[in-house]
Amino acid sequence: MILSVGQSHFELGDPAANLDHLRFLLDEAARQSADVLVLPELASSGYLFATPAEASAAAEEIPTGPASRLLAEWSRDERLVVCGICEKSGELLFNSAAVFASGAHLLTYRKLHLFNTEKAIFSPGALPPPLFAFQGFRFGLMICFDWFFPEVTRRLALEGAQVILHPANLVLPYCQAAMITRSIENRVFTATANRTGSERGVTFSGMSQVTGPKGELFFRASGDLRGVLSVEIDPARADDKWVTPANHLFDDRRPEFYTPD
Amino acid sequence: MILSVGQSHFELGDPAANLDHLRFLLDEAARQSADVLVLPELASSGYLFATPAEASAAAEEIPTGPASRLLAEWSRDERLVVCGICEKSGELLFNSAAVFASGAHLLTYRKLHLFNTEKAIFSPGALPPPLFAFQGFRFGLMICFDWFFPEVTRRLALEGAQVILHPANLVLPYCQAAMITRSIENRVFTATANRTGSERGVTFSGMSQVTGPKGELFFRASGDLRGVLSVEIDPARADDKWVTPANHLFDDRRPEFYTPD
Repeated sequence: MILSVGQSHFELGDPAANLDHLRFLLDEAARQSADVLVLPELASSGYLFATPAEASAAAEEIPTGPASRLLAEWSRDERLVVCGICEKSGELLFNSAAVFASGAHLLTYRKLHLFNTEKAIFSPGALPPPLFAFQGFRFGLMICFDWFFPEVTRRLALEGAQVILHPANLVLPYCQAAMITRSIENRVFTATANRTGSERGVTFSGMSQVTGPKGELFFRASGDLRGVLSVEIDPARADDKWVTPANHLFDDRRPEFYTPD
Repeated sequence: MILSVGQSHFELGDPAANLDHLRFLLDEAARQSADVLVLPELASSGYLFATPAEASAAAEEIPTGPASRLLAEWSRDERLVVCGICEKSGELLFNSAAVFASGAHLLTYRKLHLFNTEKAIFSPGALPPPLFAFQGFRFGLMICFDWFFPEVTRRLALEGAQVILHPANLVLPYCQAAMITRSIENRVFTATANRTGSERGVTFSGMSQVTGPKGELFFRASGDLRGVLSVEIDPARADDKWVTPANHLFDDRRPEFYTPD
């Protein structure tokens, strides 16, 4: 399976320009024979909205909006793509990641842990991070700051996720190294698609990457690459939870001691 | 508060020689004005026992054994020391860390997550990782492979630990980087005291370190240092759980979504 991440600049409040950025990444991913493509958080809209009204003007409904339709179309040829979308649903706005597979909308995840000023714009998600199957493998999904809470990746891994897909708009410098720890402690693959560029004085760190169950860093993009990077992985490798011949990562857990009294 | 970690080689099955190694580290820590000293796992005994009988011959009772008495004596002058001890209790052996403060035995923690061949030697702990106070600050304690399970540090942090003390005999290459993630995701200090040298073909990685609540790496020893490294810290910095002006690390948790159905 070819796992790809796309990294690009996006334009704040200019969905039409962002469709062009997305088309560039989708074309490049197709050339690289991507089976599964991860694109950044809020790629349809840009990130640093000052007001809900500003975000609403750049939002779309899923799966009927223009970015959704573009992504669904790309996924027709037995591909899966996950992309961050500024989602409008009734009066509410969500920082969402939508999954399209084989031409159809599969599911939408609404970010559970909103970061900083996002709280003034978006409603938080009210459903757990999703697990889904594609081409016989199991994928989990989280968005950006969700990485900070180890419980999110842990839950997905315990449920059987082999690959954690992770659209992001990272501004803090910690995440890329921490995702190696997330891989090791859960024996899963992770794919973080981050964006580049700046908005209103905030710079995004790029360095999109894919990590493996033993902490492998298959690649890490530069801070300003605009493009797609791909690696062939065998997601089934994540099913081996034996850290040593005597240590099974999940069987060795002692959950009775993990919750404070 | 001066937080120190001691790193040394130890001799397998030679408690008398290890008392000398410990004396060297204790003297050096005193010269560095240590308030809190962390020493490696199984420092009293060496690590890679082939049989329980071999381990039993190098084990001691806590707090009446010779290493315990040495550590208690060192702690008399308003100091705290935690050290890994091969503990004998009745017929059982434990991979333990004993805490001595102000001349007295404060508590013993028995490792919850035994690594690899340790399972053939030691009984696992049956009590949660401990939280304790010293000089007005709050400390948590875990041993080596416990780091692999993010729930351990998380529990201690949720209970209020400001500094995680972490005796270790590390052989895998992952832990030192992962402890930076443990610091960030919990906003705590961590102090990992690792050993050096080899036993029966297994090499320990050294690189003892102290990390801070924002992922600071205050120092990291070389792979083969025999000595003590110290840093002055303000444990109260760990009480600030605000990751951004809008994100409180603990208040932002969504535990209702963290456990698989």
